Amino acid sequence: MDPDTNKPNGQAAQALEKIVRVRQARRNKFYLREERITLSHGSGGKATHNLIEGIFAPAFANPLLDRMDDAATFTTGAGTQRLAFTTDTYVVSPLFFPGGDIGKLAVHGTINDLAMAGAEPLYLSAGFILEEGFPIADLRNIVASMAAAAREAGVMIVTGDTKVVQRGKADGLFINTSGIGLVRAPGTLGQDQLQPGDQVLLSGPIGDHGIAIMLAREALDIENDIQSDSAPLHTLVASILEAAKQNVHCLKDPTRGGVATALNEMAIASEIAIVLEEGAIAVRPQVRGACEILGLDPLTIANEGKLVAVVAPAAAEAVLQAMRAHPLGREAAIIGSVQAEPRSMVFVHTDIGGKRVLDMLVGDPLPRIC
Amino acid sequence: MDPDTNKPNGQAAQALEKIVRVRQARRNKFYLREERITLSHGSGGKATHNLIEGIFAPAFANPLLDRMDDAATFTTGAGTQRLAFTTDTYVVSPLFFPGGDIGKLAVHGTINDLAMAGAEPLYLSAGFILEEGFPIADLRNIVASMAAAAREAGVMIVTGDTKVVQRGKADGLFINTSGIGLVRAPGTLGQDQLQPGDQVLLSGPIGDHGIAIMLAREALDIENDIQSDSAPLHTLVASILEAAKQNVHCLKDPTRGGVATALNEMAIASEIAIVLEEGAIAVRPQVRGACEILGLDPLTIANEGKLVAVVAPAAAEAVLQAMRAHPLGREAAIIGSVQAEPRSMVFVHTDIGGKRVLDMLVGDPLPRIC
Repeated sequence: MDPDTNKPNGQAAQALEKIVRVRQARRNKFYLREERITLSHGSGGKATHNLIEGIFAPAFANPLLDRMDDAATFTTGAGTQRLAFTTDTYVVSPLFFPGGDIGKLAVHGTINDLAMAGAEPLYLSAGFILEEGFPIADLRNIVASMAAAAREAGVMIVTGDTKVVQRGKADGLFINTSGIGLVRAPGTLGQDQLQPGDQVLLSGPIGDHGIAIMLAREALDIENDIQSDSAPLHTLVASILEAAKQNVHCLKDPTRGGVATALNEMAIASEIAIVLEEGAIAVRPQVRGACEILGLDPLTIANEGKLVAVVAPAAAEAVLQAMRAHPLGREAAIIGSVQAEPRSMVFVHTDIGGKRVLDMLVGDPLPRIC
Repeated sequence: MDPDTNKPNGQAAQALEKIVRVRQARRNKFYLREERITLSHGSGGKATHNLIEGIFAPAFANPLLDRMDDAATFTTGAGTQRLAFTTDTYVVSPLFFPGGDIGKLAVHGTINDLAMAGAEPLYLSAGFILEEGFPIADLRNIVASMAAAAREAGVMIVTGDTKVVQRGKADGLFINTSGIGLVRAPGTLGQDQLQPGDQVLLSGPIGDHGIAIMLAREALDIENDIQSDSAPLHTLVASILEAAKQNVHCLKDPTRGGVATALNEMAIASEIAIVLEEGAIAVRPQVRGACEILGLDPLTIANEGKLVAVVAPAAAEAVLQAMRAHPLGREAAIIGSVQAEPRSMVFVHTDIGGKRVLDMLVGDPLPRIC
């Protein structure tokens, strides 16, 4: 294909066109053929979507859930304020890893889901599942880490719950955090809001969180100083909204399934195409090296301190500058743009001049990353 | 002691007075001496309180959490509407039991925590932890049960999350539900709001849920038709609030730890005494029989479709009638009253004319009841 027109210009291009045709036909179909849950159903990628679309979405169907954004937004009663509400369960293994722990991750993750709805995070809940025999000292450290993360981000943990299960019936500790925020975004944000011409911005280098967890877990003896990028993104979002006014169409933090999955979700929901420039996507050399050794695509690796912003072209430069002026967006870049066709697809222009289809994560090379 | 004056009138009474003195001195102290989590830390009783007061409360301290009610309530931003927010994780075993399943329980439990804050339940979240290998057909049934329970109660499940852990790292499926409601109660409700003279009402017979679970689990071959009482209590609460106006001081659903724990929490928070009449507390014969065989006190057994209402004396009769007019309160009764002294204690006048101290649940005879 010609990178600009998406028209075929050779044999490779014809092959690509066929892939696009086949995948496009499948894009809005979800298959749940398995009889039992597999680890892939928790990947955040294709299998998770099949599970959601096959079971949860039809059973719970309602206009708020159906938008399938990171948080639901609504007004209550006679109120005019728009609220955001989100939930996330954390099962990361190991519980402590370079750059963070499950507690910090649980606070940042839910803050970020609220922030992606354009909301100022206000209140969090914390639900613990503890395994009998879990060390109280570890619990104390994890709770202290949650408290510090909440304090630093200016949110309050206002309600909680603790359950204990017998030894062997959980894996140390799992945490659910849910959160409520006050929507500050002036326009409508959502993965179904992308328009042709929109610019796609990424706030910094990708893959650090996922690779840090994997290296901590596998004891691969790869010498490295890769740390989780876990960070609360709500002040970065405030800067973006301030710079862009009504011109932000979607914010998304590429967690499970990585940037590839996040962008595919947008492409499917908005029925547009996204074209990325591989060279614009920052990956730290150590992360890239680890991905090569492990046979992983950095675009499918989870992050917890990065965001993708899709904005109207007129606002792109202002948003980029606002992101770069923020400590968590210093390495921000415009990484691609939105086109009308072919609908529901994501492409990457590779550094060597090729073009490939970028699918959402299939399988789960890295279970329990968050 | 003389049942009316709480003054000693014999040797047994002197012994009781000593127990009261010792326990009262300990009431507001919480000890967390263990180095590892035990099943008792999940009982909802004494050990859970020790864990909360020893770890969570000091780390997360803030005015909303510190009230330690079933839900936190607050207004947001410039809004004047009061919202309630709560979270609960469900690890009940078995997942399916007479009268319900984990999904129905997870919806009713969070609806009830909102209702106890005097709130109309609006939106729920659902977070799933699935064990690799879990049957998709069971998941489908549980999700259908959640959807039906939400529909019947008029609430929407608006946001969710799914995680999968490896085989052997969870026990089939755990569910967290969090919820948001709109506070409709005109006055301030809370376990610290009890006043001497208040009347204590109970909506119906106790112990059905806990005993149904235990019998389902233990395969004790006790012939019975005991079913979980799992039910959404928000419309019963609406009836109570309508009848009582400002005169409701506290609503609480006696789940983990049962009526005994719920009342002790109130007695400690309000620094008053509660005196119960054993004869007024309904327990179905089959439940009573099972409790006797198993050596359990029905007052410490979990319920999921019952509530305790503490109301000003002037409103007690009107509230009682309103409860009895509601399908879920037909067997409601006034079971006791609030006295000024001895502070932070709960007593039971027994059917045979004695009086005993009723402590919160110690240990955990029935782990994973919800």
